[in-house]
This record gives sequence, C-alpha cells and structure tokens, in this order.
Amino acid sequence: MTHLRFALAQIDTCVGDLDGNADKIMHYAHLAAHEGAHVVVFPEMTLTGYPIEDLALRRTFRKAAWDKANWLATELEADGLGDLYVAVGTVGTDHASDKPRNRMVVLHDGMVWAGYDKHFLPNYGVFDEFRIFAAGDRTVVLDIDGVRIGVAICEDIWQDGGPVARLADEHIDVLMTMNGSPYEEGKTHTRYDLAVRRAAEVGAPMIYVNQVGGQDDLVFDGGSFVVDRDGTLLERSPMFMEHLGLFDLDTDAEHQTTGDIADLPDPDEEVYTACVLGLKDYMAKNRFSGVCLGLSGGIDSALVAAMAADACGGHNVHGISMPSMYSSIGSKDDAADLAANIGAHYDVQPIEPMFNVYQGQLKLEGVAAENLQARIRGVIVMAYSNSLGLLAVATGNKSELACGYSTIYGDAVGGYAPIKDLLKTRVWELSRWRNRAAAAGVGIGGLRIVGNENGDAGTPLPGGVMIPVSSIEKAPSAELRPGQKDSDSLPEYELLDKVLAAYIEHAHGRADLLADGFDEKTVDTVMRLVDRAEWKRRQYPLGPKVTALAFGRDRRLPVTNAFRE
Amino acid sequence: MTHLRFALAQIDTCVGDLDGNADKIMHYAHLAAHEGAHVVVFPEMTLTGYPIEDLALRRTFRKAAWDKANWLATELEADGLGDLYVAVGTVGTDHASDKPRNRMVVLHDGMVWAGYDKHFLPNYGVFDEFRIFAAGDRTVVLDIDGVRIGVAICEDIWQDGGPVARLADEHIDVLMTMNGSPYEEGKTHTRYDLAVRRAAEVGAPMIYVNQVGGQDDLVFDGGSFVVDRDGTLLERSPMFMEHLGLFDLDTDAEHQTTGDIADLPDPDEEVYTACVLGLKDYMAKNRFSGVCLGLSGGIDSALVAAMAADACGGHNVHGISMPSMYSSIGSKDDAADLAANIGAHYDVQPIEPMFNVYQGQLKLEGVAAENLQARIRGVIVMAYSNSLGLLAVATGNKSELACGYSTIYGDAVGGYAPIKDLLKTRVWELSRWRNRAAAAGVGIGGLRIVGNENGDAGTPLPGGVMIPVSSIEKAPSAELRPGQKDSDSLPEYELLDKVLAAYIEHAHGRADLLADGFDEKTVDTVMRLVDRAEWKRRQYPLGPKVTALAFGRDRRLPVTNAFRE
Repeated sequence: MTHLRFALAQIDTCVGDLDGNADKIMHYAHLAAHEGAHVVVFPEMTLTGYPIEDLALRRTFRKAAWDKANWLATELEADGLGDLYVAVGTVGTDHASDKPRNRMVVLHDGMVWAGYDKHFLPNYGVFDEFRIFAAGDRTVVLDIDGVRIGVAICEDIWQDGGPVARLADEHIDVLMTMNGSPYEEGKTHTRYDLAVRRAAEVGAPMIYVNQVGGQDDLVFDGGSFVVDRDGTLLERSPMFMEHLGLFDLDTDAEHQTTGDIADLPDPDEEVYTACVLGLKDYMAKNRFSGVCLGLSGGIDSALVAAMAADACGGHNVHGISMPSMYSSIGSKDDAADLAANIGAHYDVQPIEPMFNVYQGQLKLEGVAAENLQARIRGVIVMAYSNSLGLLAVATGNKSELACGYSTIYGDAVGGYAPIKDLLKTRVWELSRWRNRAAAAGVGIGGLRIVGNENGDAGTPLPGGVMIPVSSIEKAPSAELRPGQKDSDSLPEYELLDKVLAAYIEHAHGRADLLADGFDEKTVDTVMRLVDRAEWKRRQYPLGPKVTALAFGRDRRLPVTNAFRE
Repeated sequence: MTHLRFALAQIDTCVGDLDGNADKIMHYAHLAAHEGAHVVVFPEMTLTGYPIEDLALRRTFRKAAWDKANWLATELEADGLGDLYVAVGTVGTDHASDKPRNRMVVLHDGMVWAGYDKHFLPNYGVFDEFRIFAAGDRTVVLDIDGVRIGVAICEDIWQDGGPVARLADEHIDVLMTMNGSPYEEGKTHTRYDLAVRRAAEVGAPMIYVNQVGGQDDLVFDGGSFVVDRDGTLLERSPMFMEHLGLFDLDTDAEHQTTGDIADLPDPDEEVYTACVLGLKDYMAKNRFSGVCLGLSGGIDSALVAAMAADACGGHNVHGISMPSMYSSIGSKDDAADLAANIGAHYDVQPIEPMFNVYQGQLKLEGVAAENLQARIRGVIVMAYSNSLGLLAVATGNKSELACGYSTIYGDAVGGYAPIKDLLKTRVWELSRWRNRAAAAGVGIGGLRIVGNENGDAGTPLPGGVMIPVSSIEKAPSAELRPGQKDSDSLPEYELLDKVLAAYIEHAHGRADLLADGFDEKTVDTVMRLVDRAEWKRRQYPLGPKVTALAFGRDRRLPVTNAFRE
C-alpha cells in the first residue's frame, strides 16, 4: 500500500507582490510539513498573484518571478523542507513565441522542476487569458514515491477534452488541480458537480485548491475540496478564509477516508461576506487603513458602512453626513444612529452654503441643480480622502446604477463600490441578515473571513443592532428635491429588479421580456432607463470597477452603440 | 482580355447603427455604379460598425444585422443595382458554437451570398476579437466574370501563413481585403510595406480598403490603396475623409495602370487631424453638438479648444475661465484671446467664492487644498455640460497624466480627452503647426477631414492666428499655489518625454533606461512619479477612455500591483 498526504494550501496572494507571496508560501509549506504532508498544493499563479493581466507581458517581471521561484526552492531546502513537494503557480515563458505561460512548477530538493502549462485560456466574461498567455500542449503526470499524479490548472477542468480527457488513459492515482476561480453565487455546487464528473472521467480522486481573497474587482472564495472517484466529498475547506486542508491518499483503497468537511454559509451570509472580503482586501492590497463615505440615512450607505466596519473596524470608518435643505430630520437621525452603532467617526458637513454660492453664479435648474448637490458631496468626500489618506467608497447599488439613478463625479465618486453588484432588493435582504447576525452575537469584524480564521466574535454591537430599522423600512429617496421618492421615477423595486435581471444578466430582448410575462409599459420604461443610463455612463466613464460589474458581470460594450432592441 | 473596375468605398460607419450604415452603403453603391464599377468593396464590419465588442454576443443584434443585409440586397436590386457585386462586412454566426463570426458577404442579384469569415482574430493591444468571434477556416476565391478574386479581412494579412499563404496556390487575379485598421503615427508606411509583401506572395495586385472615422477611443484614418504585384502603388485614397477610389484590373496586363494617388499630410498635420476627427466623430456618434471646457490660458486647454473649434465650429465651443487667487493676469488674458480667436462662447466663473466656503468648513492644506480648486472647476464644467447638453472635454496631455500631474474628478473631468495620447513636447509642436496652417489660410473647420471632402477653407482666423503665442511660449504652470511651475515637480519636458516614451511605450525597465543613457536621478524620479500616478489612477479609476490610452496604448493592468521594477 502507498500512502501520500496532500496539503491543500488555500491562501490569499497579492498581484505583483513576489516577496510577500513567497513568504506566505514558505509559511504554509512549514505548516504542511508540520502536519506530515508529503505534497502541498497552492492556488493558480500563487507566486505572481492572479489575475495579473498585461503585467505578465513585462519581461522584467517574468525574470523577477523566475528568480523568486529559485530563491524559494533554495530556502525550502535550507529550512529542511527539501523532501516536501511544493506545487506552486507562476508565470513562465514560451521561448518559441516569447509569450508568457500560466504555469505550475514543483519545488523539491532545492530545485524548480519543469512544470505544467495551462491548456485552456479563458477569454470570456472577466477573463482575458488568451490575450496574454501562450497555451500549453503537454499533459503531465508526476511520479511521487510511485504515486501517479495527473495535474491541471483551473479552466482545463471546465472544458471537455484536452488534458483531463488525455489523463483518463494514464492510470493516474489522483488528479491535482490549482485554481483561481472567482466567486459567483451558487458556484460552490457548480464546481462540485464538475469535479464529480472529472474524478469519474480519470477514475481517481480529484483535489481542487482555490485561491481566497479579493483582487481588484474580483473576489475568490476558497472552498477548496477533494472528491473521490465515486463522487463522495472527502474534504472541504471553509470559504473566505485562508486554510490548510489535508487529504490522505491510499492508492490501494477502493474508497478514500473522509476528512474535515466545512459547513457552508447561508446564501445571505455568503454574499455579505464576499462583499466584505472584496473591500477588505482592496484596502489591504492598496495600503488603505480606513474609508470615508457619505452617510445619507438611507439603506445603501448604511449597508456599505456596516460592511466597511466589518472590513476594517468601526474606528477606521469616517461617515460624513452632508444634509441639504431637502434632507429630512429622520434621515439625519438614522445616519447618526448608524455611525454610533458601528463606532464610526461622524461629521456633519451641510452643503447648503456651497450650494448657494455656486447657484449665485450658475443659476442651475432641474436635474443640473440636483446633480450639483451630489457633486458638492463628492468634493467633500474626496477632501476627506485626500487629507486623511482614506479610501472613498461609493454606495450605489446595481438597480440604481443600471437605471442611471446616480450622479457621475457625485455619489458615484470612490475607488471601490462594495454593493455595485447587488440589486436593491438584495440590499434590504443583506441588511436584515446582518442585523439578525448582530442579534445572534456576530459583532463588528466577527465574520468568518481572511484575518479571522479563529472565529473571533468581533466587537459586540450595542443592543445587538447594526443597521437602524428605519433605514431598512422607509421608502427610498434621493432627497434632491422636496418630497422626492425613488418610486416617482422608477417602478417598485420588487418588479424592477426582476426586469433588470432578465434584461441585463440574461440578455433578454424586448420580445423575450414580454414573453417572460412583464407588462409592456414596465418593459418599455425599464429598457428606456437602462439604455439611456448605459449610454450616459459610457459617455462619461465612471471607471472600470464600477461600470464593468454594475452593468452585467461579463459585458464589454462599445461607448458608441446606436443599436436599440 | 478581361477588365473589371473595382470601387474602394472608404466610409465612416457607426457601431450599432444598422439603418444609418445601410443607407450609407446604398449611397456609395450608387456612386460606384455611376462610376462604372463592377465590384464595390467596403471596410471590415461595415454594416454593424467596428469594433463592436461584446455587442456581437447579443443574439437579437445578430438577427437584426442579418435582416438588414437581406433588406440591403433587395433594395439594391430594386434600385437597378442587382448586377453590381457589393462586398460588405457584417457579423455572422458559427452555428456549431453559436459564436459570432467577423464576416464578409457579397450582395448581388438581390441575394446575400455566402461569405468569408476572418481567420486571425487579433487579441492584443486595443483588440479583443478572439474573445468575441469564432475563427473562420475556409479560404474563399470569388469568380466574377471569370476573374478570380481572393479575399481576406484585416488581421489575415498581418499574420504569416493562413488564408493569404493558401491563396498563393490559387492563381488569383487580385487580392481584395477589407480592413478596420486604427490610426497610429507612421502606420501608412507599415501598411504599404506589408501589402507589397502580400501582393508578391499571391502574385497579384492587392486592394486595401480601410475604415475612416472616430469610434470611441480609436481613430481610423482611411488611406485605402492598391499595390501591384511588383509593389507599384496604383491608387491611394486620402486619409481622414470618406472617399470612393477606383481601380481598373486588366487580367492580361503585366502591369496595371496607375490611377489617383492622394498626397500624404505632413506628420504634425496628420496627428492634429487624427485628434480632431476622433473628437468630431465622438460628438456626432454620441449626439453632442457642442463642447465645454475650462480655459486656463495654458497651452493644453488652448490646443484642445482649437481642436474642438475645428471639429464643431467655434460657436459650439463654450470656454470657461475659472480663475483663482493664484491665476496670473497673463493667463486670464491668454484665455480670453484664444476664445476670441476661435469665436467661442466665453464665460468667467471665479472659483474663490466657492473655495472660501468649502475652506470655512473643511480647512484643507497642501495637495488637498490644491485638489479642491481643481474639483470646484470640475463641478462648474459639469454644470455647463448638464444644463446646456454639452460634451465636457478633458484637457490633460500624456506627460501630465503619466506623472500624475492631474486631479481626478477635477481637471480630469470629461467624456473625451483629445490630447491624452500626446506628450507635452508634441502639444507645443502641434500648436505651432496649427498657427502656421492658420497663417497659410486654413480657417476654423478647414481641415481635410470627414465632412469636408471638398476642402472648404473654413472660417478665416482674425490676423491668421489661432493659439496665442504667449500660451505656447510661457513656462507651464498649474497655478494652484503662488509662483508654482511644472518644473518645480517634474524634469524639463524635453527630457521627461524621452524617458516616458522609453519607460511606458517601450516597456524599458530601470536597467534598460540607464543603458539608454538617462541619468540615474532622472530615471528614479520619473519611475517614482509614473508608478505612483499609475497606482493612484488605478485606485480611483478615471475611466477607460482616459486610462487605457493615456498610459501606454496597449496595456491592461491590474489595479493592485505590488511589483516594482
């Protein structure tokens, strides 16, 4: 009987940070050795971070990554870990074309062993790999102590045929994969179903190691796992945190032994945690320790402030109330209550004095006057950002952004927009979930997430409430003119969000939407709003992080587009 | 002897505007027939516009394009043009994968004839075609009245091998290509050299029809041409305007007869005209009739205002002088003179009153106070944009943007940035060229460009001067604090621009730059400025149109990037 212990090192890397990533690999290799592992597997492009986009094309960067991989192999041996097999992802070079390759190498005995290059280079949705890399064309079977290990990288297992199909004839004992698979709601089950098919295809257990953490506008959720060739789940690491999972392979056994299976969060907790992790890592990797944002008393800014407090602690959140002549007393109270609940800094900066001076010169009317209010607020938020070194966060949700219910250079100001992918109805659901969690004892910073691997319950919330109930329950309003309500301009959100999902996410045309059962008036209203907003947004770009994801997760559209459905 | 007359229809299309593009195809087909042509060739993706990005993935759009191609074939026949062979580009569908194809079809006898699908799908720099389209795999030789016509689309001729190599064995009489080739300085000669090689390869004359006009952040320069198999230039259409060129093929002749050869503009005229065409078409295709911009009296805003006047007439340009307590009298005079020269609307909006009210509440210092001035100006420019329906244009040049000498949500505000790809030294050169042209009688709107095919000399400039000489000659200053000069923070532009070209455009690392002969202090200063600016710009996105092109024409970089050269 041959027995081999695999460690699944689910870590959070940073693009371009070769030193930091190498140090983390070293740390987890030590942990794995301490647990008696023979092989430790890291996520896709561990050493370079992922996705690295056109940075891979820079020759100086590829040279530095190669040097760092060699340094790492040497250091591992010097630390007494030369016997360990350390599979890391990095960037290689195809010397024929001088193009980069997405590569797995194995560090062992102080050497960097020739690796495996990813075959299938995804080039859809958020992925641009075919643009950057040359495709690999070899299948690789590693032989470690007589165990035959087939390898594959991420997209290689999502496409039929290719390296996995070829491994089916290779009598492998295990399929070992490294992945950088971004979070999408429901993807845990999709990945598991896929792995079951691939394990059956190669007739061996499959190891799936995924990256965890936020990188730019993507969130990687971890959730690494192992499935047996009969589809039995053998191991599952927790989502959203760094983790070292273990899997013992017995090549003679008909069925492998089941190890630790982490619980899955409920759907609202999962999405809320993904948003917080994205913000937290965006701050960490871009060296921000705090955020600033406008607090209107409405639900969007309240939810974003709550997420920010969970990401960096309430004392690093700077909430700015910027009331105008149209702001209700209730809104101002709700903003103050939220700030008090999370322990945020809280300033009041009335905008009426600035508004009056501008209007003395400009005499604006209608929407131009409404936009002026939003833009004065944008200038104030950026003043806090510049003078205190804070990350300005934008508070727009997907329903608003899709319908153009937002002012460029106004409330859209910010370097990161944590809820841009959430429809308004989901904003309410997540707010209610966070309050339920608070009541159940999840304090500020108490989420199970990178940096809280041991499950600290966080800073308790006074009275067990995070988001003021009246912010959740009142009718939404931008408060840019007297008595304004969102429902003056938009259909009710329950209906609007259903139409948006069909029109934007599922690309239904007008005829499809009518066949979906939506009434003609609503369809035409929403299509007109969305088309106009998309056109406006394209005219005055809000920047890739807001537009690319707010308006359909996977669309890259021309600015000029005269086509109408 | 077989004789065939080809018409090269170099036209300006609009993405998504199936109706407008079809009408223009119809118009040029009539012109071609009137000139006795047998075959008329249009640019790549004529009917849909180019580049259409992910719009091609929308099934409703592909259906509409197919219907429109059929309508066009029917209408051509109804108009008595059924005998003409009309080669147009459009989007097709690969029914096996349900992916779009980049397709040439031939309209004849009231029918849409099966076409040719582009083989090589560029996926570098500004191109994303592999993301969108399925590649074609068939070579196509059309037989028209016994003449064998090989066809290819754009990138097919840029790659060795593939369809052109296969055509070498097909004894074709002519190689007919449709192209959507974006403008780059010097590309006229590159294209010609390439065509000479391909014509020799297939042993036949080659027809190169290129798109003309601005589309989003790209400019297509036209300059369609024909070369004989021995490399002789047989026809050349003018750059930057719509044109119907003619080429007579005699299949028995050893050498073909030379037709019209348009002059090439001088290098400064070429770049200036490309910038104006980009702005002009951005306005037209996004339905703006006028622009607004801040006029500081400096050279950047002066050049942009001059370009805007050439694009849409001085009476559609709204210049706003926004002096602060630090603005010199000379600057204010220069701004007023420029506005008067081009006949622009001119308003003075002092920012000191707003600045004082903000500062009463915020008490900012240093860079935060400087940014506040720029952002107050941004709010005012956007107020003009909103209340008058004008396109706000940003005036930053490439040297400033690369070094971070710009304020987000401040002077970077705008939907289009006409000189974002020009280094500062080029800004001065183009300003001097425009004044020389003005002195030589080129009035406002008098450029040879789409819409001015007949060469109208434009509106004469008073005194033959467009840009005030003192704007060109004075030392550059942002005037955000007393006595400030650009040279306080930046190396002299003559040197800076050379380092930027090497570091950004040619991706030279630190060691390369030292080997280039730049001194260590300058190299380190510029690298630090550029890296910091790129990081800041990625943190707070300025939007794709400013970032993507300002910072190297072909780079797509991650937001988070800890790598340092």
